[in-house]
Amino acid sequence: MKTLAVFLAVAAIAAAQTDWPTYSGDYSGQRYSTLKQIDRTNVPRLRVKWMYQTNDLDQFEVTPIVSGGVMYISEPPSNAAALDLRTGRPLWMFRRTIPNDVRVCCGQVNRGVALLNDVVYLGTLDAHLIALDAKTGHVLWDTAVADYRAGYSITVAPLALRDRIIIGMSGGEYGVRGFLDAYDPKTGKRLWRFWTVPGPGEPGHETWLGDSWKTGSAATWTTGSYDPNLNLIYWGTGNPGPDYDGDVRKGDDLYSDSLLALDATTGKLKWHFQFTPNDTHDWDSTHTPVQFEAQVGGRARKLVAVANRNGFFYVLDRETGEFVAGKAFGKVEWAKGLDAHGRPIVIPGTEPKPEGVPMYPGVHGATNYMSPSYSRDTSLFYVATREEPTAYYRASVPDYKPGDFFVAGGNRGVPGVEPSGAIKALDPKSGDVRWEFPLHSPPWAGVLSTAGGLLFGGTSEGNVFALDSATGKPLWDFQTGATVTSNPISYEFEGKQYVALAAGRALMVFGLE
Amino acid sequence: MKTLAVFLAVAAIAAAQTDWPTYSGDYSGQRYSTLKQIDRTNVPRLRVKWMYQTNDLDQFEVTPIVSGGVMYISEPPSNAAALDLRTGRPLWMFRRTIPNDVRVCCGQVNRGVALLNDVVYLGTLDAHLIALDAKTGHVLWDTAVADYRAGYSITVAPLALRDRIIIGMSGGEYGVRGFLDAYDPKTGKRLWRFWTVPGPGEPGHETWLGDSWKTGSAATWTTGSYDPNLNLIYWGTGNPGPDYDGDVRKGDDLYSDSLLALDATTGKLKWHFQFTPNDTHDWDSTHTPVQFEAQVGGRARKLVAVANRNGFFYVLDRETGEFVAGKAFGKVEWAKGLDAHGRPIVIPGTEPKPEGVPMYPGVHGATNYMSPSYSRDTSLFYVATREEPTAYYRASVPDYKPGDFFVAGGNRGVPGVEPSGAIKALDPKSGDVRWEFPLHSPPWAGVLSTAGGLLFGGTSEGNVFALDSATGKPLWDFQTGATVTSNPISYEFEGKQYVALAAGRALMVFGLE
Repeated sequence: MKTLAVFLAVAAIAAAQTDWPTYSGDYSGQRYSTLKQIDRTNVPRLRVKWMYQTNDLDQFEVTPIVSGGVMYISEPPSNAAALDLRTGRPLWMFRRTIPNDVRVCCGQVNRGVALLNDVVYLGTLDAHLIALDAKTGHVLWDTAVADYRAGYSITVAPLALRDRIIIGMSGGEYGVRGFLDAYDPKTGKRLWRFWTVPGPGEPGHETWLGDSWKTGSAATWTTGSYDPNLNLIYWGTGNPGPDYDGDVRKGDDLYSDSLLALDATTGKLKWHFQFTPNDTHDWDSTHTPVQFEAQVGGRARKLVAVANRNGFFYVLDRETGEFVAGKAFGKVEWAKGLDAHGRPIVIPGTEPKPEGVPMYPGVHGATNYMSPSYSRDTSLFYVATREEPTAYYRASVPDYKPGDFFVAGGNRGVPGVEPSGAIKALDPKSGDVRWEFPLHSPPWAGVLSTAGGLLFGGTSEGNVFALDSATGKPLWDFQTGATVTSNPISYEFEGKQYVALAAGRALMVFGLE
Repeated sequence: MKTLAVFLAVAAIAAAQTDWPTYSGDYSGQRYSTLKQIDRTNVPRLRVKWMYQTNDLDQFEVTPIVSGGVMYISEPPSNAAALDLRTGRPLWMFRRTIPNDVRVCCGQVNRGVALLNDVVYLGTLDAHLIALDAKTGHVLWDTAVADYRAGYSITVAPLALRDRIIIGMSGGEYGVRGFLDAYDPKTGKRLWRFWTVPGPGEPGHETWLGDSWKTGSAATWTTGSYDPNLNLIYWGTGNPGPDYDGDVRKGDDLYSDSLLALDATTGKLKWHFQFTPNDTHDWDSTHTPVQFEAQVGGRARKLVAVANRNGFFYVLDRETGEFVAGKAFGKVEWAKGLDAHGRPIVIPGTEPKPEGVPMYPGVHGATNYMSPSYSRDTSLFYVATREEPTAYYRASVPDYKPGDFFVAGGNRGVPGVEPSGAIKALDPKSGDVRWEFPLHSPPWAGVLSTAGGLLFGGTSEGNVFALDSATGKPLWDFQTGATVTSNPISYEFEGKQYVALAAGRALMVFGLE
């Protein structure tokens, strides 16, 4: 029965491909639209159709959800709104009063809502998960996921499965213990919790020194993907705490900086893959994992790809977690490469020092939370990359106090280096770069590929652009007037295809003339 | 010599009609563009070409200046920027640190800059006038116009004449004494000051009770117009202080709520016309006066028109100040009409009372600071009107303390009344309404007429629209996602006509496909 139900849920999402029902468009994490009305030929005629402006100066990082003629968005700090697709005007607005002592290292942001059966799910900076009536915005239930006073917050878009809402947390700079949770969509009751830092007696606990696991972080602040056939959730984890000092937590610090494969029903760990053992550079591995299928070694395999903040691109077998291939996709100065198991061959002396160690990738990584994309047409993997070194400093470890900033160092830019960026198209089987579109400065915007042969993205200078997804050739762009820090989506409404994206304080919907 | 120089300056502005060199487009206050590439036929093809987003949540009320391929804007609170017309990207940004104890009744806003000979002029909330190098944004001089601690601020766009910069002030709710100033464009030295509240021994002083003139307000917070042939500046003045209580300042309270005609060279008063004597309803007469010529009584006359916050439309002879015609252009419940001299025939009992007196127009007026427009094609006067009553309350007069709020009452909305608005086209000779375009709620956006037969405006729901200026028929609109609180402009660049306007946090430039 369970398998049939899962199959039906997936079929529903596949059929509803004119909508954008979940963070990455569907469960695969591909951020790929099957729509092709907007194509290489007509994309120069793409124009702003309407805008919606938010009333907050924090970064607008939302990926909108589109379903049934309505767009559901979150807004900073922890608000939500439903917008009429015809006019762009709000049908309702939900405003959450946030305590003034929430702990947020990196801006009062939110990356989106989830939608399931006429209910909108929103995580908040005070670490609650809230269910809102999709028709009215009224609160149906409000569950405290964790204690925000201990440093927990929620910025991630929840992932709605057929019968559970998956939600991660933020707080890696506050010495929290990370987890991933599943909640009953109807009641808000917690169904399971997976601790991303194993406790005493659990496998992996031995990778932490003494009590360091208690403040081990490994947050889960970017939406993962889901394979309904394997019933596995794929979700990335963040840096181990405290940042910058690996000695106080000597060992690999599992499951920090890892990709987790969890049974969706039970929350049990099926497999894990760690990208950066004993990380001292703040290289959260919180990227949306991208599922794809390919022939590798003469047989069809179910794979998952990650372009990592640490500078390496990885392909794993998504049934087993086995390392299939890996390769640097940008400048990497901390490791010579990956060994046969995908473990980095670390160059000695690259850890932070009191006097500072300048290095690529910088602290914001070779990429970051912005979503990658995989095109089912070109079979290429697209990622917005950052070429920006930083100097890493090590300082003393502060005494841990719940809710206080818990970081043992810092970072600075490297003088004389002009940071830049690129959109790179990788062969997902090998990591080879097929084409590259240079960007003036490091981007914070994700990418979207479409069946129209297009790749959409945004720049820190405020441009939204479309490239030919086969060649990287620029075909269209628009100046939004503010840094793009969100992910594009595409949907069809009343027979027409649209592309939507937030930039600065404005969410814009683009359509053809 | 002076006449020739003035003539040349005017000729320069007339020739540069492809630009938008001053607040109202030219000195006439008509906010009319001679450009006609965008017309009734093709305006449905108007699209956003680029956007610029400001990084402040206060209202974005700017009228941009366009000259030499560059757009010069102010941004809230007291900032400025120069934008490249090709890309919309800033060439420079000027950021003013505002003391945290500035006095602003109604938002930290600014309505625009002035430009003269490669120098940009900006007023600030701390009551300074600043000259910036138009190429770099560097400060050339910085003059304290008044002491902000006494309640003065500047939100108005300066008016640049050939050899002087005219600047008004805000602060009518703080018991200041109003004035209008002229400054040397090169040095920042003050050339003259006209006190809008006459001191002892000056004509009009007798219209104030006792010492009430010292706190008489009559601020000058909206940009006026200028007739270079008559060498007269036309500038409106605000409410008398304290608001809501006329007894403590018994008399007409000159020159509050008036239109002033000042000699531009000397700052001497040529004539004045008071719209609302002894005002108790906060009906600032700070509207841009609109000059036009027409046959009245069988002879060609130089006229000036004002649609007033008090609900009446006025036509005056702009050489003499003589009242030519007047008529209510919206609901007026405080006066039966105007007498032969244009003085209101006040209905007894309409002044504020402790228990509240509900009435049209409301405290925000039948219109407000948003600019009207006059079309040289249709010879119609266009105004964005507000249909919104408020109840006016009278309270005790506070002791005056410099810099403190100095208001003797308040106002509230009237329950059960749904406020609305309209764009109205008036025959400027009579005030007769020729057509009316209804708006869902009271607007805060000005209007622009063009030689293409169009009238542009904006709504509080976020729509920007174009109407047929002859008939009021809607031809185009765009949803900007936020209330429009600015004035549209039009300019030509590289052979193409554009329309620009700010809404919410975004300044948008529209052009034809």
